[in-house]
Amino acid sequence: MTINADTHAGPRSDVAAETAETNALKTTAEPASTHAPSAPSHPLGPLSASEITQSSDLIRSAWPENTALYFKVVTLREPAKKELVPYLAAERAGKAVPSIDRRAFVVYSLKGTHNLHEAVVNLTAKKIESNVKLGPFVHPNADGDEIVAIEKAALSHPDVLAEVAKLQLPEGAELVVDPWIYGADGLKEGKFYDDVRLYQCYIYMRDPENSSEKDSCHYSFPLPISPVIDPATMELIRIDILPTGLDETIAPLSAYKPRPANEYIPESQHTMRTDLKPLHVQQPEGASFTVEAFSDLGRTIRWQKWDFKVGFNQREGCVLYDVHYDNRPLFYRLSLSDMSIPYADPRSPFHRKAAFDLGDVGAGWMANNLELGCDCLGSIYYLSSVLSDTRGKPVEMPNVVCIHEQDSGILWKHTNYRTNRAVVVRNRELVLQTIITVANYEYILAYVFNMAGDFTYEVRATGILSTQPLDLDLTTTPHPYGTAVHLGVLAVHHQHFFSLRVDPMVGGHGNQITYDEAHAMPRDPKLNPHGVGYTVRKTEIETSGGFDLDPSRNRVFKITNPAVRNKLNNLPVAYKVMVPPMQPILADRDSFHYKRAEFADRSIYVTRHKDHELFAGGQYTNQSRGGTGVRSWAERREDVKEEPVLWVNFALNHIVRTEDFPVMPAEMLRVMFRPANFFERNPSLDVPSSKQAFNCSVGLNGVEGGVEKLSVGDNTGCCGK
Amino acid sequence: MTINADTHAGPRSDVAAETAETNALKTTAEPASTHAPSAPSHPLGPLSASEITQSSDLIRSAWPENTALYFKVVTLREPAKKELVPYLAAERAGKAVPSIDRRAFVVYSLKGTHNLHEAVVNLTAKKIESNVKLGPFVHPNADGDEIVAIEKAALSHPDVLAEVAKLQLPEGAELVVDPWIYGADGLKEGKFYDDVRLYQCYIYMRDPENSSEKDSCHYSFPLPISPVIDPATMELIRIDILPTGLDETIAPLSAYKPRPANEYIPESQHTMRTDLKPLHVQQPEGASFTVEAFSDLGRTIRWQKWDFKVGFNQREGCVLYDVHYDNRPLFYRLSLSDMSIPYADPRSPFHRKAAFDLGDVGAGWMANNLELGCDCLGSIYYLSSVLSDTRGKPVEMPNVVCIHEQDSGILWKHTNYRTNRAVVVRNRELVLQTIITVANYEYILAYVFNMAGDFTYEVRATGILSTQPLDLDLTTTPHPYGTAVHLGVLAVHHQHFFSLRVDPMVGGHGNQITYDEAHAMPRDPKLNPHGVGYTVRKTEIETSGGFDLDPSRNRVFKITNPAVRNKLNNLPVAYKVMVPPMQPILADRDSFHYKRAEFADRSIYVTRHKDHELFAGGQYTNQSRGGTGVRSWAERREDVKEEPVLWVNFALNHIVRTEDFPVMPAEMLRVMFRPANFFERNPSLDVPSSKQAFNCSVGLNGVEGGVEKLSVGDNTGCCGK
Repeated sequence: MTINADTHAGPRSDVAAETAETNALKTTAEPASTHAPSAPSHPLGPLSASEITQSSDLIRSAWPENTALYFKVVTLREPAKKELVPYLAAERAGKAVPSIDRRAFVVYSLKGTHNLHEAVVNLTAKKIESNVKLGPFVHPNADGDEIVAIEKAALSHPDVLAEVAKLQLPEGAELVVDPWIYGADGLKEGKFYDDVRLYQCYIYMRDPENSSEKDSCHYSFPLPISPVIDPATMELIRIDILPTGLDETIAPLSAYKPRPANEYIPESQHTMRTDLKPLHVQQPEGASFTVEAFSDLGRTIRWQKWDFKVGFNQREGCVLYDVHYDNRPLFYRLSLSDMSIPYADPRSPFHRKAAFDLGDVGAGWMANNLELGCDCLGSIYYLSSVLSDTRGKPVEMPNVVCIHEQDSGILWKHTNYRTNRAVVVRNRELVLQTIITVANYEYILAYVFNMAGDFTYEVRATGILSTQPLDLDLTTTPHPYGTAVHLGVLAVHHQHFFSLRVDPMVGGHGNQITYDEAHAMPRDPKLNPHGVGYTVRKTEIETSGGFDLDPSRNRVFKITNPAVRNKLNNLPVAYKVMVPPMQPILADRDSFHYKRAEFADRSIYVTRHKDHELFAGGQYTNQSRGGTGVRSWAERREDVKEEPVLWVNFALNHIVRTEDFPVMPAEMLRVMFRPANFFERNPSLDVPSSKQAFNCSVGLNGVEGGVEKLSVGDNTGCCGK
Repeated sequence: MTINADTHAGPRSDVAAETAETNALKTTAEPASTHAPSAPSHPLGPLSASEITQSSDLIRSAWPENTALYFKVVTLREPAKKELVPYLAAERAGKAVPSIDRRAFVVYSLKGTHNLHEAVVNLTAKKIESNVKLGPFVHPNADGDEIVAIEKAALSHPDVLAEVAKLQLPEGAELVVDPWIYGADGLKEGKFYDDVRLYQCYIYMRDPENSSEKDSCHYSFPLPISPVIDPATMELIRIDILPTGLDETIAPLSAYKPRPANEYIPESQHTMRTDLKPLHVQQPEGASFTVEAFSDLGRTIRWQKWDFKVGFNQREGCVLYDVHYDNRPLFYRLSLSDMSIPYADPRSPFHRKAAFDLGDVGAGWMANNLELGCDCLGSIYYLSSVLSDTRGKPVEMPNVVCIHEQDSGILWKHTNYRTNRAVVVRNRELVLQTIITVANYEYILAYVFNMAGDFTYEVRATGILSTQPLDLDLTTTPHPYGTAVHLGVLAVHHQHFFSLRVDPMVGGHGNQITYDEAHAMPRDPKLNPHGVGYTVRKTEIETSGGFDLDPSRNRVFKITNPAVRNKLNNLPVAYKVMVPPMQPILADRDSFHYKRAEFADRSIYVTRHKDHELFAGGQYTNQSRGGTGVRSWAERREDVKEEPVLWVNFALNHIVRTEDFPVMPAEMLRVMFRPANFFERNPSLDVPSSKQAFNCSVGLNGVEGGVEKLSVGDNTGCCGK
């Protein structure tokens, strides 16, 4: 168990490393690619299968033959904003569009090494535009191939098996490994390292009474042995033994004590409910939205005056571009840019536990293949995509986004009590949903639009808690860092931070971020003699920085366009941002959790737009050390009266409940964007009223034998038969 | 225009007033009521029609014949908790229940006077148990009869008409009056009074171009004339002329300047959307809930392990009692106890504008008659009720609560990435919805239950803003107190405060209120060497008081039962309360808005249970002066380690947008109660997985002529035909 240190032997500066590698590169003037020129493609279209192949072939052609490359990312390099804005404007106006080269962004390593490279490939010109070796302290994302290999490596290593043997597990015990992103602690002494990319493997066991059940919840049986593995070499670096008590003591491994299982699969439940009646959502005339291809994989969605382009990539999953309402511009680009989940347990090795699931793995990669009738209800359209595998070959990603409409209650109502006439309009919503599985955990991510110009980003956190072993007899003792969720199972508290990146164009480009606060007026014999007056104060954000919410002042952030005025009242058009308040990251300012999660300390960051600054934690989050994300960009103290980018950070502190195990009921977070003096009046006045002839509801009241009972007879509504 | 001051001539002390009135009361030993003894009735059943009649007859019998009484409230007087708790326990256990007398609570006045009386009638014993004259500074709620009479009085008074004439309104102009609760300012000098119950009437005009349209939005045409009327005598007290500029200046009345209408009714829109396709919710096997009568008007609802009793009364509307999940006690009583809406405009007479819609009018009284296919979607059961009119006669209140199930997305999901098996459970909810119309405004109030033991109280604020006149040429000038929402129309900012009263019995009676906070651990070389650790601190609330949220500490209030422990981890069973943070009331501490809205300064109040302390602003909110609500009760500094009552206060500060006019898209607020170590594991593990065979969704993907298009052909799902 030694670390393969010679990967980074010799000088480590970027310049030296690049010089050494550059010599190995062939010229890219005459690419080896044999791809036929592809048809003109939209600059925002996700890389097509052939473009992925073309990109990796081009990169391969730059290296001596038989150099084994390992592709980590092959994705669209989006055009610079100053190129794209005129393109989109021309496209919308139905005019000839300027030509924009298609480019790919490629991250790859030399197979079996930690040598990491980043390249930009011009697919139109068929050449590599840049190709540099990265490092030190720059690490790529995980991928499925290496995770499977690590699971195998961990469980086949004799040293690991020797440790496991000490647990005297029941006959036929099946072990399961969750390779975890290693994290960072800055230590490089003794047996600890964090400057080489590593995996911390947590080992679990399937229910030994039912070990053939591959869907047994192994998180109910965490074991105290944690191998650390180098993914480049698959070498075992060391084995950590986990603390299983109330403090940092590491107890010698001892024999496993039997305990019951705790399963989430339905066939393992004692009883299932039998009294839930079906509820169907039917759209007999089809859905109200349309889907149109703007590129091989890119889609334009139109629904109830909204239109936008949908992209999909390895890192962010579903991305929206060029969002308009009623042909009025609102958002240039929208995506979930990052997440970070630091854990509360300060004991080694848990102190490094902080997942950045988008940067460390990729929301695109982890997107579920959504299934009809399971993940959405009603009339569903699925978007599929294509990503690259580690050989640079395209992989089909079917049904990664589901699109459907839903009813969400009443949007507005008024009854004129003098005439008794009620006018009711229901709130129909359009949902674009992606579900990602991050080993144990699930995130349900959705863009939601309504008919009153509101846009909501919704996150539901569900799935299974990442558990750790707890001495069986401590289950009933309060634990300082978490909750005992099962016999001998500790689930540690953790914070979830999400960063939504909003590149706005409310009413057009040239936006400004402001915030309003409501303040009481001072008592004044003339102006405020009764002490009840209050007014709204506006603050314009002029310089990039981080900002906090302040519910006590009703502080509301807005995206405004000072150049475009509401025709009625002359106020600048705006969208307000409704963000739930969060507890900032609890890890202290000198900790790596804090330094790395550059979006976890403030609810709002405002930066000046810079092409390719897309991810709040930086381009490379795995074992990152900070200094490369939104906090650092904000510290440039740039003028944001032009080209502001808004980073909306929201979070939950998951203080674990027993109810969250063995699978947790979703915790929901929502960020809402609402027009504020953007329209001159309620923009949903033209939505037809809610009527029985349209909604076909069913009345259940009925009298049966004198006792009022539910009527289940006539339940077909006005549209039955 | 003089005030009728002799109503309160003579000594004003309670004792003196009561003595005077008591002499007029006949003995109640031999009631004049001729009602037959009613059948045994459940102690929580709303007053039946015959009980309402019996109550008012009993009261009438106590007065000399031909004394004209005016009934303000005839409602159930709920039993004392110490009587009711054993009753409910016996009932649930299927044992013989103790006998509890039925009682009515009656508020009435001597018609044409301000003499107000409060009585408790024992319906079982057929006698008046108490009957006292109230006052001074105690005023009853408004009612429909008097509001209609005031509208007529205002518009028929020659002095009002003389003022209106100065406006030189267009030929055929139709005026509409919104009589407003007068509010309080403590002034009793010059022409101002607030110790006598009064109405402040705001006058509007229907669109003069379309004045026969009775559903024209008159709030688009506010007029600057505001008569003040005494509802006892219908006398005009004075006419206030409203400020219409940016400050408190009152300009002389001048000729009306024409402006366009701004209508919300569909037939007045230029165009209506035609591309919204129907969306039907069908339950082919009927609903999953059952409804059973526990009294004439009371209903027991059972759904997905939940069971509770539903009552309905004039003040609170829909009330829930004896809420259990899986036969485990959770809540003894739940209701929206109060609301207050203070406005930001400090100028007279607007400085008194602060509605307490539940106490000033009554959520029961204002409940809409809900219509199939309009107010809910799917399979709906309606509850109806009966209230008392001003003559003490029963009035049918049909369809005041609608009950239905709804799908609300995914409750939990996990995909085992090793087997690719996904288990998904959808979140079905049960909704009990009431919609109240408060003149211009609407509130949609809902109790929502789900299958994971969560209970949510939801408020949607919609309807029409209460507007005031603005000089036409100031429409484009920023206004200090509000937003110009139409030409010459100002909508003033206002705060909405809601108080949810929770009488808990989580795991049984004997609850305690606590709050948890997450705190960073200090750096420590042994305990927290990397600065990432954090722990949870619990605070037990021992003494009644008001408490604030603190998102920066993740402060979470809980209802716990120290005597009942989670069997797995020995933590006390609990429900946590998830409350959105609010900006406390902006009116200053010496203001009447602040003094009256005793629940508007803190997010949480905890008091010790006292029978009949049900309303956070006090029993009588109309023109109240404070000192009679939850803040005052909390100031008793009682021991709340036993019998705590939790008051959850939440709010929105409505900074008005043009989008909120002429009818506002709903603003939603939600308070959620979630089990926290109440169950030993996720209580929804026994919910059947989401499957196509059950859900009958429809896939829309299809390829048509090479271009991917929505398929609208086969849209009947697996259950079609």
